[in-house]
Amino acid sequence: MWTLYHQWLSPFCRKVRLFLAEKKVDFELRLEPVWDRRAEFLALNPAGEVPVLENIDGATLADSQAIVEFIEEEVPEPSLIGRDAAERAEVRRLVAWFDRKFNAEVTDNLVGEKVVNRLLRMGTPDSRAIRAGHLNVRHHLEYVGFLMERRTWLAGDRLTLADLTAAAHFSCIDYLGDVPWEAHEEAKTWYARIKSRPSFRPLLSDHIPGMAPASNYADMDF
Amino acid sequence: MWTLYHQWLSPFCRKVRLFLAEKKVDFELRLEPVWDRRAEFLALNPAGEVPVLENIDGATLADSQAIVEFIEEEVPEPSLIGRDAAERAEVRRLVAWFDRKFNAEVTDNLVGEKVVNRLLRMGTPDSRAIRAGHLNVRHHLEYVGFLMERRTWLAGDRLTLADLTAAAHFSCIDYLGDVPWEAHEEAKTWYARIKSRPSFRPLLSDHIPGMAPASNYADMDF
Repeated sequence: MWTLYHQWLSPFCRKVRLFLAEKKVDFELRLEPVWDRRAEFLALNPAGEVPVLENIDGATLADSQAIVEFIEEEVPEPSLIGRDAAERAEVRRLVAWFDRKFNAEVTDNLVGEKVVNRLLRMGTPDSRAIRAGHLNVRHHLEYVGFLMERRTWLAGDRLTLADLTAAAHFSCIDYLGDVPWEAHEEAKTWYARIKSRPSFRPLLSDHIPGMAPASNYADMDF
Repeated sequence: MWTLYHQWLSPFCRKVRLFLAEKKVDFELRLEPVWDRRAEFLALNPAGEVPVLENIDGATLADSQAIVEFIEEEVPEPSLIGRDAAERAEVRRLVAWFDRKFNAEVTDNLVGEKVVNRLLRMGTPDSRAIRAGHLNVRHHLEYVGFLMERRTWLAGDRLTLADLTAAAHFSCIDYLGDVPWEAHEEAKTWYARIKSRPSFRPLLSDHIPGMAPASNYADMDF
């Protein structure tokens, strides 16, 4: 049995949650208040970040990509990182797109300012950052649309970690009601397909105390 | 034959340069002025970022981690990402440590402010960011020291991508003369071992026009 140390609106934790669920690997969620920098948690991951995946036998994995690559090896089916080297390169390119580019351009600006800032009482959100996040999310929706005009799923003809990673990132922004789906039909169709998967259901019932999700967050007809 | 589109002080490009050299994979360097956003380059990588590795047959890889994972599969020896799943998880954890944590805490603050800012004529460097970079690099030197008290190389008993990634990041800061090696003996010993490898030599002859390296940058006795 695995325990996943996580935070609700961390796209990196959500990526691991979706990945484990698609692999049908059982795990328990454990909310980790990373800002407390608990000694026991730092012993698991000196970076002090979630996600961390801990096995009942004591084995510990840290960093979302290190975790999913490990699970892909241990539980090969269904294959989610690609079936050959070229496919894996394309999946990993898109994972990096969302984990780094989307995260810096959108997530940090919106979740960072609206949620983390508030949880840590770091003062008023920066309205310039929020405007930048709102502008940038449109470019990423367009890129998803561009890919969906050419492919069945983001990285090719099968669902992969690229879709799960992208959906994990979009879902955090969607919790805040900040994804303009109506203006991006192809991206919306893609997200609706991910959203209807059993692996996605637990994410849709996330409810952060004191911070209700946007009204369409859990809606299949959004 | 491969062509690597790069920037001189990008730790991500240096990571790929070191990796290819350790694998004895031949490649040509091509300096890409990413801020020009050339259409031909965006066609290779719509993220508009270096590194991009292009094969003479037209195959294109983008994102440093996607590139090295691909090459590790195509050229298995010497193994640089670990020989089993647990070892690979530890290598990838440390790669993420430097590619994300060191990059945000040190590289963005120092290379970002001192070099990128200047190249793009974006105004005066932010002295608060530079101070933060100087402070943070010490924590990372301590972490390298902590690992070196326990292991032969960063991830275990063999040189891996973890060492190459860490060295790539430190080398960019070292070019600026901003690594306080003298106060961190164990980290210095580790860096001296990497610095003396043939794979590292090309990096030591890097010389950015108009921005000479710090005096000890290429020195074996630093």
